[in-house]
Amino acid sequence: MKQIHPVKPYPYAMGKYLDTIAAVDPGEQIQIHTEDAFEGQLTSSNDVPSEVLGKYLNPQTGPIYVNGAQPGDTLVVHIHDVEVTRDYAVSCLVPEFGGLTSTVLSPSLQEPLPEKVWIYRRQEDGTFSYDPQKFSIEPQPFMGTIGTAPDLEMLSALTPFNHGGNMDVPDVKKGNSIHLPVRVEGAYFFTGDCHVAQGEGEACGVALEISGKVTVSFELKKNSPIDWPRIESPTEIMTVGSARPMEDAAKIAYKELVLWLENTYGYDRWDAYQLVTQAGKLYVGNMVDTYYSLVAKLDRHFLPD
Amino acid sequence: MKQIHPVKPYPYAMGKYLDTIAAVDPGEQIQIHTEDAFEGQLTSSNDVPSEVLGKYLNPQTGPIYVNGAQPGDTLVVHIHDVEVTRDYAVSCLVPEFGGLTSTVLSPSLQEPLPEKVWIYRRQEDGTFSYDPQKFSIEPQPFMGTIGTAPDLEMLSALTPFNHGGNMDVPDVKKGNSIHLPVRVEGAYFFTGDCHVAQGEGEACGVALEISGKVTVSFELKKNSPIDWPRIESPTEIMTVGSARPMEDAAKIAYKELVLWLENTYGYDRWDAYQLVTQAGKLYVGNMVDTYYSLVAKLDRHFLPD
Amino acid sequence: MKQIHPVKPYPYAMGKYLDTIAAVDPGEQIQIHTEDAFEGQLTSSNDVPSEVLGKYLNPQTGPIYVNGAQPGDTLVVHIHDVEVTRDYAVSCLVPEFGGLTSTVLSPSLQEPLPEKVWIYRRQEDGTFSYDPQKFSIEPQPFMGTIGTAPDLEMLSALTPFNHGGNMDVPDVKKGNSIHLPVRVEGAYFFTGDCHVAQGEGEACGVALEISGKVTVSFELKKNSPIDWPRIESPTEIMTVGSARPMEDAAKIAYKELVLWLENTYGYDRWDAYQLVTQAGKLYVGNMVDTYYSLVAKLDRHFLPD
Amino acid sequence: MKQIHPVKPYPYAMGKYLDTIAAVDPGEQIQIHTEDAFEGQLTSSNDVPSEVLGKYLNPQTGPIYVNGAQPGDTLVVHIHDVEVTRDYAVSCLVPEFGGLTSTVLSPSLQEPLPEKVWIYRRQEDGTFSYDPQKFSIEPQPFMGTIGTAPDLEMLSALTPFNHGGNMDVPDVKKGNSIHLPVRVEGAYFFTGDCHVAQGEGEACGVALEISGKVTVSFELKKNSPIDWPRIESPTEIMTVGSARPMEDAAKIAYKELVLWLENTYGYDRWDAYQLVTQAGKLYVGNMVDTYYSLVAKLDRHFLPD
Repeated sequence: MKQIHPVKPYPYAMGKYLDTIAAVDPGEQIQIHTEDAFEGQLTSSNDVPSEVLGKYLNPQTGPIYVNGAQPGDTLVVHIHDVEVTRDYAVSCLVPEFGGLTSTVLSPSLQEPLPEKVWIYRRQEDGTFSYDPQKFSIEPQPFMGTIGTAPDLEMLSALTPFNHGGNMDVPDVKKGNSIHLPVRVEGAYFFTGDCHVAQGEGEACGVALEISGKVTVSFELKKNSPIDWPRIESPTEIMTVGSARPMEDAAKIAYKELVLWLENTYGYDRWDAYQLVTQAGKLYVGNMVDTYYSLVAKLDRHFLPD
Repeated sequence: MKQIHPVKPYPYAMGKYLDTIAAVDPGEQIQIHTEDAFEGQLTSSNDVPSEVLGKYLNPQTGPIYVNGAQPGDTLVVHIHDVEVTRDYAVSCLVPEFGGLTSTVLSPSLQEPLPEKVWIYRRQEDGTFSYDPQKFSIEPQPFMGTIGTAPDLEMLSALTPFNHGGNMDVPDVKKGNSIHLPVRVEGAYFFTGDCHVAQGEGEACGVALEISGKVTVSFELKKNSPIDWPRIESPTEIMTVGSARPMEDAAKIAYKELVLWLENTYGYDRWDAYQLVTQAGKLYVGNMVDTYYSLVAKLDRHFLPD
Repeated sequence: MKQIHPVKPYPYAMGKYLDTIAAVDPGEQIQIHTEDAFEGQLTSSNDVPSEVLGKYLNPQTGPIYVNGAQPGDTLVVHIHDVEVTRDYAVSCLVPEFGGLTSTVLSPSLQEPLPEKVWIYRRQEDGTFSYDPQKFSIEPQPFMGTIGTAPDLEMLSALTPFNHGGNMDVPDVKKGNSIHLPVRVEGAYFFTGDCHVAQGEGEACGVALEISGKVTVSFELKKNSPIDWPRIESPTEIMTVGSARPMEDAAKIAYKELVLWLENTYGYDRWDAYQLVTQAGKLYVGNMVDTYYSLVAKLDRHFLPD
Repeated sequence: MKQIHPVKPYPYAMGKYLDTIAAVDPGEQIQIHTEDAFEGQLTSSNDVPSEVLGKYLNPQTGPIYVNGAQPGDTLVVHIHDVEVTRDYAVSCLVPEFGGLTSTVLSPSLQEPLPEKVWIYRRQEDGTFSYDPQKFSIEPQPFMGTIGTAPDLEMLSALTPFNHGGNMDVPDVKKGNSIHLPVRVEGAYFFTGDCHVAQGEGEACGVALEISGKVTVSFELKKNSPIDWPRIESPTEIMTVGSARPMEDAAKIAYKELVLWLENTYGYDRWDAYQLVTQAGKLYVGNMVDTYYSLVAKLDRHFLPD
């Protein structure tokens, strides 16, 4: 299987202005290796993030050129596996970052939270923990960052938006398919930022960050544009909206779900609005990034055969 | 069992300025009957909400005086059952209300959405549907509105806030216990607005509205103040934050969960912040009310025995 | 002239559930005396607000019954004078309150800002200063809080909303007329919270708080309902929107201004939208209260004669 | 004087990935010519924007290389003149864009507002009007878009952020100096989007768009980094925050103003917080762009000599 490794200097932003590092055919199964969001620089609970970390975070593997991808297509990324490639994961408190602190984008005059680093080690039972007397976390690995090149912009790898990006949505996992818009020739696919686990919202801003190896294949839906990312699981269809304030992310996610039901599954618009009102699910992927990401879901049993 | 019915003129707001309609001892099991949010006035898909509905919505049953309740106590409401008392539920589109429309609080110059009413009838298999060829909804009844009197204010029954109120959170259901702050002598408990089902977010603003009968008993935790509502299920503990913009509701919910872990379960604050970051759940109760309600959750297996 | 003084126990909320303290005829000129927002309890820079202050803030003078006022009328409050009745004003930092700190409604896990009190004394030149070597502030006195009773609710005197309330808008000053909705018989007028000066936004949450004496007369526009407060100055017309997030306050203010131009001044809606786009002003009254208040303005020279 | 014209293909985004079109020395006075935001394609009230306009809006003139500029410097842009180069300006309603409509980033299921175009022609008295019987607007020309290249990103010319960009702030005008961060070697300066006038907030999203010629000179403050744009006028100092929700833009603007007073003018932090609380001004530049821009101001008489 083709192995694709991150190439230095790592991309810390997604866009068409970078050189592609590989070209892949639709249908070809590949393995993509990913650095952790801190480039492996945090290894001890004594590390001080603001001293250790460089200027940029969240290095990506990419851009990967998808042969045949044209603007207006949808790139479907089938995730066959997400494996972690280390026996420890790291979380931390970074000053002015996270859900329960003022931030650069929502500032205050208060002192920042204390800096802290936690090293979660894989336990014999497979869980991850920095202190098994306290708590242990079941691995549920996924890709925090996945996206394509925006049409015109070059967006930080810390940003989730309508191209995907740093959505931090736990449903970007093995067995699911991620639909991303193709906005430039070749799609320019990026991924990175594997988390061995993460709660909804990613409250402190840093999940269980880890290096990874993901097995994916690409499928192209020709001439089938989408405005925002979508996810299909064996049991659900999902849409992801990323915006601020958070209610706008919710509106985007549910509007996209209504339109998907209308355009693909033959629902009348108002029937679709009723259906998501009475049966939709809506959870917070992240409440910490430059845009918040919300996921709207519907069970497949509501879809026509 | 003591039966408590709504008393006219119905309360459309929650506060201490109303006469209590019943007094109940802690531990006593009672049945509270509730009108639907439209007072039963919508009965046909030909109804036009703006013509049929009165000035006020969401009539409550209450206030109920809880004997012995004092400011600073927590009122725990054990929900033994939530039954619906009709074989149909109603949803509708009301002008300038809902998640995918401009509203009175977030206005535009656009034309409102069309008014529509859907009558969902109970099917033979127990599901509810306005057209079984389209879709049917499993009943998962809960109380959309539940709360106590604010200290000083009298808040519309359409508003969720730190006293509970119109949270529209599906976890306010049979088998769960709702913790509400006691801010006035006697607590002044209100409930109403049963939904036979509702999706997360309540996208169009109107769930499957129905009349109901709820069986509850009260427990008082003396001298144990809480700032925001909490929910306990057999498997999870939950906090509810209601605010605008939505990220502030998320912050409230997760901060309350961190403080609960710290104050009741002996977690160090930063351990608690880590725990909810890696293992918390965060879903949207409503994205349509005067404040948005978000629910943060943690599995009980993380709690000490 | 009729003198109206605040009556203990002071109202800390606005609503129809209180006993009126006076009745006034339209056209009658009256003087209303107001406590400062801290009830005069902060008098020294050594005071610690969290120790000195009681549970409630912002005592109001009212409710004042306006003879003849009926729901659906507009109450026009002509402000003939705003005088301060003390030679010092006070500002302070209160924990978890203000624009550059996390708050109860937008919380964090950070330590609060330090508590501080500043006593601004009237200088010989009429300005106010806590240290003339540092800076002095020109007096521009206005009423921080002014409103009528909501229809159903009883809202904290700290809250601005569609009834007026704690808008903290510097244009509520001598020479201007404030339009407030009448929602209950007698209008139930309240005012308080004089500021001898305040910047736009009231950044730290506490202006130059002072006791005052305001000279006003009431006018009733019969059967002329308004949804949100309006202000007329000799040179401008203004609308005030209070909401969260702040963009919703901006939308309310500009929509109300468009509708005012359309309904009262004969503008076509789209002409009005163009006019406020090219010539409107929009400033922040407060960025600190339970709702933010924004003021949209238009110069009178755009109005037909 | 050196004349710099926009070069096709026009930049519709700001970043370091473009070829510079000119190099300029600090101190050199230059004239920059700018297209209007619609590239001059709207010329009649019969035009339909969604049919006439291309995929991209807001073409910029740039990037201009500023000789000697290094990351960490501040680029001060002295605006000597802003002249319009046409005798008409254009405004319009574009679907899903503006302050009083749902938008792509805050969507609804409502029908969009009607499309309309207004051609404002220069009148004999110098004002601009599409119908002098209705209203006429005084020219107050300024540059809607002005910025430098972000460090890593390439941001749409429709976006205002910490590099400047599409702030739509009327104080970017003749006689004022704009401070922008230098984040790449040569600064990569862009400008465009002249408005012959605009109200605060730019309510409908489209000001009086016009082609222009601006006379500027650059000054470099070496090793003097700033986080957000600043403006100096003869009478005031100002900071600009661009973010969503709007309260975050307000927080950024006032925090930057406090830090400016602290770091440059020797104010104690808490004195500075008091000063902006009691004497600051805070207006809305735009309530329509991808981020909202708010301007905080302080009168220079508060600054030490």
